[in-house]
Amino acid sequence: MSSKKKEHVIIPEISEITSPDFLHDLSYKDLDVLADKMRTYILEMTSKNGGHLSSNLGVIEATIALHRVFDFKKDKLIFDVGHQCYTHKILSGRGLETLRKKDGVSGFQKVNESVYDPFDAGHSSTSISVAQGLALARDMKGEDYEVIAFIGDGSIASGLAFEGLNNLGHSKTKVIIILNDNEMSISRPVGGLGKTFAKISTGVGYNKMKSGFSRVMNKTKVGHKIYEFFRKIKNWIKFKLIPATYFDNLGFTFLGPVDGHNIKAMEKIINKAKKSPKSTVIHICTKKGKGYSYAEKDETGYWHGVSPFDIESGKPLNMHPGVISWSHVLSDIVLESMEKDDKVVLISPATLKGSGLENIFEKYPDRSFDVGIAEEHAATMAGGLAISGYHPVLDIYSTFLQRAYDEVSHDIARLNLPTTILVDRAGLVGADGETHQGIYDVAAFMSVPNTVITMPSTKDEAKALYYESLKQDFVFFIRFPREFTSDKPAQDMLLPYGKWIKLMNDSKKEKAIISVGPRVRELTNELEKKHKEVTIYNALYMSIIDEEAMSDLLGHKEIIIYDSYSIIDGFARFISSELMLRGYKGKVTIKAIPKTFVKQATIDEQLGDFGLTVKDIVKLVS
Amino acid sequence: MSSKKKEHVIIPEISEITSPDFLHDLSYKDLDVLADKMRTYILEMTSKNGGHLSSNLGVIEATIALHRVFDFKKDKLIFDVGHQCYTHKILSGRGLETLRKKDGVSGFQKVNESVYDPFDAGHSSTSISVAQGLALARDMKGEDYEVIAFIGDGSIASGLAFEGLNNLGHSKTKVIIILNDNEMSISRPVGGLGKTFAKISTGVGYNKMKSGFSRVMNKTKVGHKIYEFFRKIKNWIKFKLIPATYFDNLGFTFLGPVDGHNIKAMEKIINKAKKSPKSTVIHICTKKGKGYSYAEKDETGYWHGVSPFDIESGKPLNMHPGVISWSHVLSDIVLESMEKDDKVVLISPATLKGSGLENIFEKYPDRSFDVGIAEEHAATMAGGLAISGYHPVLDIYSTFLQRAYDEVSHDIARLNLPTTILVDRAGLVGADGETHQGIYDVAAFMSVPNTVITMPSTKDEAKALYYESLKQDFVFFIRFPREFTSDKPAQDMLLPYGKWIKLMNDSKKEKAIISVGPRVRELTNELEKKHKEVTIYNALYMSIIDEEAMSDLLGHKEIIIYDSYSIIDGFARFISSELMLRGYKGKVTIKAIPKTFVKQATIDEQLGDFGLTVKDIVKLVS
Repeated sequence: MSSKKKEHVIIPEISEITSPDFLHDLSYKDLDVLADKMRTYILEMTSKNGGHLSSNLGVIEATIALHRVFDFKKDKLIFDVGHQCYTHKILSGRGLETLRKKDGVSGFQKVNESVYDPFDAGHSSTSISVAQGLALARDMKGEDYEVIAFIGDGSIASGLAFEGLNNLGHSKTKVIIILNDNEMSISRPVGGLGKTFAKISTGVGYNKMKSGFSRVMNKTKVGHKIYEFFRKIKNWIKFKLIPATYFDNLGFTFLGPVDGHNIKAMEKIINKAKKSPKSTVIHICTKKGKGYSYAEKDETGYWHGVSPFDIESGKPLNMHPGVISWSHVLSDIVLESMEKDDKVVLISPATLKGSGLENIFEKYPDRSFDVGIAEEHAATMAGGLAISGYHPVLDIYSTFLQRAYDEVSHDIARLNLPTTILVDRAGLVGADGETHQGIYDVAAFMSVPNTVITMPSTKDEAKALYYESLKQDFVFFIRFPREFTSDKPAQDMLLPYGKWIKLMNDSKKEKAIISVGPRVRELTNELEKKHKEVTIYNALYMSIIDEEAMSDLLGHKEIIIYDSYSIIDGFARFISSELMLRGYKGKVTIKAIPKTFVKQATIDEQLGDFGLTVKDIVKLVS
Repeated sequence: MSSKKKEHVIIPEISEITSPDFLHDLSYKDLDVLADKMRTYILEMTSKNGGHLSSNLGVIEATIALHRVFDFKKDKLIFDVGHQCYTHKILSGRGLETLRKKDGVSGFQKVNESVYDPFDAGHSSTSISVAQGLALARDMKGEDYEVIAFIGDGSIASGLAFEGLNNLGHSKTKVIIILNDNEMSISRPVGGLGKTFAKISTGVGYNKMKSGFSRVMNKTKVGHKIYEFFRKIKNWIKFKLIPATYFDNLGFTFLGPVDGHNIKAMEKIINKAKKSPKSTVIHICTKKGKGYSYAEKDETGYWHGVSPFDIESGKPLNMHPGVISWSHVLSDIVLESMEKDDKVVLISPATLKGSGLENIFEKYPDRSFDVGIAEEHAATMAGGLAISGYHPVLDIYSTFLQRAYDEVSHDIARLNLPTTILVDRAGLVGADGETHQGIYDVAAFMSVPNTVITMPSTKDEAKALYYESLKQDFVFFIRFPREFTSDKPAQDMLLPYGKWIKLMNDSKKEKAIISVGPRVRELTNELEKKHKEVTIYNALYMSIIDEEAMSDLLGHKEIIIYDSYSIIDGFARFISSELMLRGYKGKVTIKAIPKTFVKQATIDEQLGDFGLTVKDIVKLVS
């Protein structure tokens, strides 16, 4: 039997993998072949289903090495964010054929999916804190397993991860942290810590010592020899000790850097960490997008999260001619405003690529600030800029805005400072599932004083609301969905502050609908087509009662509050409560997302499950 | 004219100070005399009005030095948290006679109070981000002033501060950070970073290098000499370079440590930082509570924030015999439960002293975790413990819970994990003012799925709710106010899950009140005394509709929703919306705190301003 034949017997097809146990039987050569198979499979599945590509291609070998050293039925592996767990899923018997589809495999770790997933994630920088919780529990129970947090260089620079490191470092419990340094977080690496990983810096004190030492020592021959020797030591210090001291200072053993694509080297260093009695950070270097040239060359983060694409050309499969994303609508409007008004500044917590802000950063590098995955800092810094006479535009996804709840309230709204908050991906987001739904922001921020919450239904409204926000001196939220709209340029329109827009009139005053967002336009179109008379208000100022509209509405026999972009607590509660306080005696129906975490599916499927499609509402009033 | 006489002429009385300009005319000896005067005055005023004592006594000299180097009408000084700004207030002409009183001087920095306060604070760890915002604005405008963030060792270990440091360190803008190391954050110092300031640690790599180097070098005589020389260098590295590298790595120039009570030395080092072209951290060492022996000796944080006290004895002035704080009520209940159930673990983000948790930490050191000012980490770590079979009890102030909004939702509730969240200081908090009001949590968390929000009105209910929370497998909030209650031990009582309690019945079904918290009991007592028949429900399960109670309520002609512990968005919106959906045709009145930031005053004054005292409600129904 030739060795080649043996290989073919041992390396399973991806579809045959049910557990990672077979990994122990493979040679390192076999393992590399397996890694290549994985790579091809992940590329293929992601090109079909969409998903996170670059991060997954980067950690195949590292994940294999981890599965060889540990038994993750017992040991606990937490992927930070979780968007790099595809190899882990495959090795634990979960193929990616149904990736990100309704009732399919999640793009993140999910406790309910497998015994190999000890926790769920989706938001960044939670892994160290979760790992410490698991490890403390292990110690209290006197059990014996290892806990591993796998975290990227972008995520570790966030406040929550720092709090975890700081608390874990000097606690008695042990966690192994794999710091995956791919020199590229979602956008470019930002902040001091990121740069520390990229190039080693030395401090003023150190350099001062160096020059004094040189002066003294080079006076004599022996001194010169000592100096030369010390220079070598210094270089060792410079390249090894100083980056290590960041984690050292926080109480960790620090190992690495090691090539994260070398399975053998990875195993060796992981085993070292396993033997260490205290918490250990292993610094691994990987190449994001490895094996797929488009993703390898990507510097903008384009290949981080992708929709279905053609592998050969790298082009997206479902082009939408004539439409652009709402993110780009707002990005274009902001760019235009920055040309006219030099007091407008843009702050992005790692949303540069996701929100399509590249043009702004290119044209106004001095008035655009990418602070990395640091939503809290983004909001508080906005406060500092706003009180100094600038108008910060904070671009943030609804789901990540949750991280800055306190800062928006305490550091911006409380001081009543002019700030525009662009709430991207507001409403249901589809395939990313429970962790990314943008349906809670209205409920959370409705209670924060000195704010107004708005949601346009058209590009023109978006433009008008945005320019209105620049005129106001408080916190102005503008929400927009993860959906597409016409690519025709936004027109100027008159939009009086705080007024709702009446889209349709029921002369018999039978039924009225109060709604928001682009879907209220679709609804109006559908009902017009059917020649159905229903009063429809577009309550684009969601947190303000338009008294004129309200007194019209109070005359109707039935009022339907239709919010397909938020859960019931928030807009629907606010409007129904205000109807009650005004003594409305008719029938009120709320059609809004119930108080729940919404699982992955397409947005239409998600709306359908709740009876919240435009069709459902048409049926309701027909 | 003797020099002594001259001194008396120059050093003003505290009451005569209107600006810091006079500081430039004083000798260092005079300045020390002034510092002593300040100390006596701050002690006296705080003993009368209550306030933050230890932190203010610790930074008198440092503040004087800052005012001598900078002109804070132009330069910007941001005190982190702001509870150490009394000397700054005095020097900028604000006496402390009305400290923390209604319409009086705030205990924190306030933009509206003085040109010397460039921003407001109250919550921890915002100063670096704010400073960066101010500095970026300065650079964009081409203006010329310095921005200084003054931050303690407790606050700098929080995630937000880290995000600020990380972003600021390698940005082009310049900020000076005064790191005030008093070896004691509010509770004891926790986490790796805190320990770094206390004692210098070295890493494995470094120690390995050391021993290898020793082995090689000590083989020869010259080698030994080199070794000895290197040993000295090493010690220099150990004590100077390594702690500095934390800030070095993040991109800062690092100066110090310097004695923060030595005005001359402080001035010198601050001038050095002023001259530096890049952002600089000055590490200063101070003694918290300096000059008042009780506060100096304090290790528990007792003298951090105090109510009025007798200077001589250190005893509080207004003793309340027969009553204890709600914090202690809950603390006692938790302690008892930990005796019975070894799965209960306590997590405190620096609330150890404030929530009276000392007994628990003493008795169960292995099941009690003080994570420092790290609310986000506290919540996410709770998730890790909960999924491992433990029942975390997270003790947190309502206002600081805002920091963990995302983590409570994403890392606990979304996974439907059993966790009890004790929401301390829920409701109005009095003298701490806008930044500390505990009135937003219900509105914020009402929308988070897999949670229930409760508020007991008696100790017995608190106990019953707490034990109920241990039985449930989701997030269970128990809110309690910053007030006092009877010190009689809590009794066991039957409290069915999700049921409200009917406290009074109006047989004529005219008026009904739905209310929560201890004040609903006061209201009932008052109405009983007056023999006034009103239906009263104690909706202690605030986020659940008790359908039985609701159908009783629907039969009343008028319903008053009385929530004196929260703003209108939240409980009042929820109940009135549910009444609307149930087709209630009677009159609904909401008596809740309006959507606003509530300024400092006593709690009774604050309630009075909103017409929300028990008396107001008695009048309303009479």
